[in-house]
Amino acid sequence: MKEKKDTAILLAHCPDQKGIVATITEFLLNNNGNIIRLDQHVDRDIGHFFIRVEWELDGFQIPQEKTEDFFKTLIADKFKMQWKITFRDRKPRIGIMVSKYAHCFYDILSRYDSGEWKIDIPLIISNHKKFEHIAKRHKIPFYHIPKNKETRAEQEEKEIALLKEHHVDVVILARYMQILTGNIIKEFPNQIINIHHSSLPAFVGADPYSSAYKRGVKFMGATGHYVTEELDAGPIIVQDVIPITHRDSIAEMKRKGKDIEKIVLADAIWAHINHRVLIHENKTVVF
Amino acid sequence: MKEKKDTAILLAHCPDQKGIVATITEFLLNNNGNIIRLDQHVDRDIGHFFIRVEWELDGFQIPQEKTEDFFKTLIADKFKMQWKITFRDRKPRIGIMVSKYAHCFYDILSRYDSGEWKIDIPLIISNHKKFEHIAKRHKIPFYHIPKNKETRAEQEEKEIALLKEHHVDVVILARYMQILTGNIIKEFPNQIINIHHSSLPAFVGADPYSSAYKRGVKFMGATGHYVTEELDAGPIIVQDVIPITHRDSIAEMKRKGKDIEKIVLADAIWAHINHRVLIHENKTVVF
Amino acid sequence: MKEKKDTAILLAHCPDQKGIVATITEFLLNNNGNIIRLDQHVDRDIGHFFIRVEWELDGFQIPQEKTEDFFKTLIADKFKMQWKITFRDRKPRIGIMVSKYAHCFYDILSRYDSGEWKIDIPLIISNHKKFEHIAKRHKIPFYHIPKNKETRAEQEEKEIALLKEHHVDVVILARYMQILTGNIIKEFPNQIINIHHSSLPAFVGADPYSSAYKRGVKFMGATGHYVTEELDAGPIIVQDVIPITHRDSIAEMKRKGKDIEKIVLADAIWAHINHRVLIHENKTVVF
Amino acid sequence: MKEKKDTAILLAHCPDQKGIVATITEFLLNNNGNIIRLDQHVDRDIGHFFIRVEWELDGFQIPQEKTEDFFKTLIADKFKMQWKITFRDRKPRIGIMVSKYAHCFYDILSRYDSGEWKIDIPLIISNHKKFEHIAKRHKIPFYHIPKNKETRAEQEEKEIALLKEHHVDVVILARYMQILTGNIIKEFPNQIINIHHSSLPAFVGADPYSSAYKRGVKFMGATGHYVTEELDAGPIIVQDVIPITHRDSIAEMKRKGKDIEKIVLADAIWAHINHRVLIHENKTVVF
Repeated sequence: MKEKKDTAILLAHCPDQKGIVATITEFLLNNNGNIIRLDQHVDRDIGHFFIRVEWELDGFQIPQEKTEDFFKTLIADKFKMQWKITFRDRKPRIGIMVSKYAHCFYDILSRYDSGEWKIDIPLIISNHKKFEHIAKRHKIPFYHIPKNKETRAEQEEKEIALLKEHHVDVVILARYMQILTGNIIKEFPNQIINIHHSSLPAFVGADPYSSAYKRGVKFMGATGHYVTEELDAGPIIVQDVIPITHRDSIAEMKRKGKDIEKIVLADAIWAHINHRVLIHENKTVVF
Repeated sequence: MKEKKDTAILLAHCPDQKGIVATITEFLLNNNGNIIRLDQHVDRDIGHFFIRVEWELDGFQIPQEKTEDFFKTLIADKFKMQWKITFRDRKPRIGIMVSKYAHCFYDILSRYDSGEWKIDIPLIISNHKKFEHIAKRHKIPFYHIPKNKETRAEQEEKEIALLKEHHVDVVILARYMQILTGNIIKEFPNQIINIHHSSLPAFVGADPYSSAYKRGVKFMGATGHYVTEELDAGPIIVQDVIPITHRDSIAEMKRKGKDIEKIVLADAIWAHINHRVLIHENKTVVF
Repeated sequence: MKEKKDTAILLAHCPDQKGIVATITEFLLNNNGNIIRLDQHVDRDIGHFFIRVEWELDGFQIPQEKTEDFFKTLIADKFKMQWKITFRDRKPRIGIMVSKYAHCFYDILSRYDSGEWKIDIPLIISNHKKFEHIAKRHKIPFYHIPKNKETRAEQEEKEIALLKEHHVDVVILARYMQILTGNIIKEFPNQIINIHHSSLPAFVGADPYSSAYKRGVKFMGATGHYVTEELDAGPIIVQDVIPITHRDSIAEMKRKGKDIEKIVLADAIWAHINHRVLIHENKTVVF
Repeated sequence: MKEKKDTAILLAHCPDQKGIVATITEFLLNNNGNIIRLDQHVDRDIGHFFIRVEWELDGFQIPQEKTEDFFKTLIADKFKMQWKITFRDRKPRIGIMVSKYAHCFYDILSRYDSGEWKIDIPLIISNHKKFEHIAKRHKIPFYHIPKNKETRAEQEEKEIALLKEHHVDVVILARYMQILTGNIIKEFPNQIINIHHSSLPAFVGADPYSSAYKRGVKFMGATGHYVTEELDAGPIIVQDVIPITHRDSIAEMKRKGKDIEKIVLADAIWAHINHRVLIHENKTVVF
């Protein structure tokens, strides 16, 4: 594959109607936009249309600053779309919140440090000091913001301010062991991604591995999802599962779980920062 | 692999103690019992020991009718075991209960008719007449026993009588769409196997595919489990899952679901009739 | 999902160019064709475009008998497409060729007999008499055509004649244990589907389970593919795999293999008869 | 699970005979060895017996320095065993060889640095300087040993000397892009683990992703295996696979491949350093 040029990405959804694809592709064609990827989906169970189109900016005749206005006027309003156009001309900015578990945290940093992911990590927030030296090693600002029930609301205000100040595009809870309040969730709607260590909706809440052991299931999993106010009930981006048997102790499940957790979280982040995720009725379409 | 000779199978479990494996293997060795398979497992989280041993009857010096007495006296009582010895000298007898879904029913009959499984199917019970001609085709007695809330208890008595009269070893609910009462469950403890069309404990109860669609999960599954009085909460024998995406409508999920349902149910039956399943604290060890 | 109405399905592929999707969707839109599903894909590694569109015939303004001509003239020739339009107004006709293994054969018949698949099976051809009574049971014409190296070519001529006479849309090799010659393959290009009992390209040829055992692999699989003149080298439609361990004897691998073979073959047939498969450069795009 | 105490681990295999398990378990029982895990397996296809036993050293009446002698004399010689006893009283020493791919390398270092794995990494060898600063960051000696066809043999002598000098228990090829000669392989028999980026035996050799793309497979995989003189033909320890579709470009396959490669390699290392792997006839039994 050739080196990626600058592109624009449209994510849009609306009630299904005749002519949406024809209208959008004609719009791009007429303005010399070379489509490099188009995905569309109609959910017939609810009559809803989803589309993602990526086209090259090179040669596209509508100036970048006018694209959104043109699209809104000519297409989005007509079809009553929820939509967003992103220009792939700067690195995604990822804010990390972490507690004491290393596996997801190290995995994200490895992808960043090795250049596997072209991202910026403007800050790391933690309720513990454990990983401060790791942040330092990577020259990423580290903020130690401890929390308890009494201070939660107040401390979260600091976190919101920091995340905004650093212009993060998405907040990653890399096994962050604190409940978030509605305040921070409202500030970053569908922009906070959590990894839950079970295949939701099974085993919501704390200690899913012990619950899975107790129930005697033959599969365990991990779920990368957007955070909403209801615990572990937000839109699911990615899931994966692995078989287990009676031979897997709780300790062994935790050991194996770390690996699917880190891969599932990475897949969810990858989908998000590549603008592949549409959300509708608390569910995702991941193109 | 050579043709299977007649064998005996011990299934046993007890609190973990020193010397269990040594004692059992010595007992068989001393009596010239040729072990062809031994599986043992210690669940360290609860300190419990599980074993399955299969040995050839040819050459074994303890007569079949005395084997249980000897084992009980010399070993089982000493280690306070839950145990069972089965002689593999007759075909397992499977009673089928079915409603209107064909896939699991046809799959079991195919394995029976083609000789893939060496089993007897002494009877089929259904609350509908839909499959009567299929039973006839295979010359299996078919009992039409319709049910509603009022008649459930009474009709179940007939079913219990029929299943006993036909000496079934295990009752298979091949998508049987009626709730069983505690009566029949007590008569066949850990001998009734159900297929639930989700990866339990997710989506207990009716219509799991619609629930899975609504929750937007990225995996769906099927669970073969023993029936206990609490709905969909019995010991899980086998599970399997398949990935799904936004492209899978409810209809598509149902279509794909049929295939994992029938395979998971078949795997659960296979494990049961080959005496590979131990049950302890509402969980299974499947050797 | 509502009952399926009569629809038309376009399968087409061509070198990637600007405007294909716009042109096709506009063509349908202008002629009042209600698209119920559109899938398109661009393989950027080779610059090739693939599309499948399904639209309702009800209301579509181009008469069925003129659709192909219009499409050819207005679109296909312009983009230099390989293409095909099918009208979903009759059941697919499946010819089965089988030897002595029951599992795939019974599985296909079960889906047919139970109505899970809306298909016709106009004939069954076998080089053995083993399944003649099964064919009779389902009132399907059965042709016993034994073969050996000397008679292969001659006997195949009979098979070709029979398959043509019965107007089959696709020929299924349900574990048919005879090599086909180029003659029959040429008569039914990309219309003969075989199930190979390994995850190709691993373990081409005879007895893959023994080879897999000998190599000590930790996964085994099955492959549904179109038959081409090179053995086990045709376009792959569907594959699936299952984990195995040292505990799996060759016999156990064969037992487990039966189940993935039958499901993979069924999935491949399903994709084919629903016109979801495009073939280009010995590979498939399965929408 | 409680903190692991010091234990001894026996790995042994021999032609199957009566009384092996009884003899071993009695030996441990009589000497007050508390078994904390026992796994045994009989491969009936070849009549071969495999066992792994782990027991606590605390209370075991045979002194550590005499254990091997006693076991050899009393048991191993009698049954003609291939065997090894390891005492879990020091950290495994892992030597890493790496070229320019980061994913496996970073993953191993992450597990080491975070304490997920209790190991020592006494040295890193590379034919490039790319990762020298990473080694420095972790204070691990880094040896830059470039190679070409002419210098291969000579440079390998240096590597052998370094690996011996640092007393490594196992050499990990973390995507090391140089062929090893028989010299180094003979020095470290069944102690060099490689990650191959396909599901062997499919796609042996260079660039398996391009080959998989070209063949149009629907699954791709990774294999962790011991290195033998025949390329990519050594005993397989761990494999995993993931589904792919026509949507996966070669670039996308490489991206996804990195994640299964690093997890499969980690699983293979974990099995090896926990003394769970037995090798017989170029195959593994992984307990």
